[in-house]
Amino acid sequence: MSVKFKYNGTLWIEIEGEPVFGPGRVELLERIQQTGSIRQAAIQMGMSYRQAWQMVEHMNSHLSHPVVISQRGGKGGGNAEVTQKGMDAIKQFKAFHLRFHQLLAEQSKDISL
Amino acid sequence: MSVKFKYNGTLWIEIEGEPVFGPGRVELLERIQQTGSIRQAAIQMGMSYRQAWQMVEHMNSHLSHPVVISQRGGKGGGNAEVTQKGMDAIKQFKAFHLRFHQLLAEQSKDISL
Repeated sequence: MSVKFKYNGTLWIEIEGEPVFGPGRVELLERIQQTGSIRQAAIQMGMSYRQAWQMVEHMNSHLSHPVVISQRGGKGGGNAEVTQKGMDAIKQFKAFHLRFHQLLAEQSKDISL
Repeated sequence: MSVKFKYNGTLWIEIEGEPVFGPGRVELLERIQQTGSIRQAAIQMGMSYRQAWQMVEHMNSHLSHPVVISQRGGKGGGNAEVTQKGMDAIKQFKAFHLRFHQLLAEQSKDISL
């Protein structure tokens, strides 16, 4: 057959059924890390500052330590820094995410539909 | 920590980026198999007959063989049967789906957030 079936999927971490960490939040944290700003990260991802801030707050309040430390206001509109905890969370998630996608690719070879 | 982080995820099969087989369609096929009717299966799943019929047609036209053979009309409103191809597709998907969820459970033990 010339048709190409592929497995695809999504992956996230939840707590009591509520998603708390996934690809979108990894991207948000990485952009905060790059720009030093929750606002800039939000703009880059096409979301409101409020949305981005709420995501950060949600992670900060559910993980054992904050993932972002931020100062509001001041020149340039405050700055934000991803903590060691945040970096560890990103690393941990991406490692399994990569393994997940390797498994999908591998398993796709065996699809017979 | 008393918090319980868990990996969760979804899984489907696509062709050229378009989803063609997943948990919803597995459920639809199983209900067709149980009831002998696309209409009854649709009712059970809270979808319209048209939606269910289109899903069946989508699978029938993208897989190497039809997954459902149906006769419209007649007494009782026609009947439908899941083919061997359909049964094989269900079995194949469920096997990997189970393995995927075993991996999620196993990996969840190692989450440190």
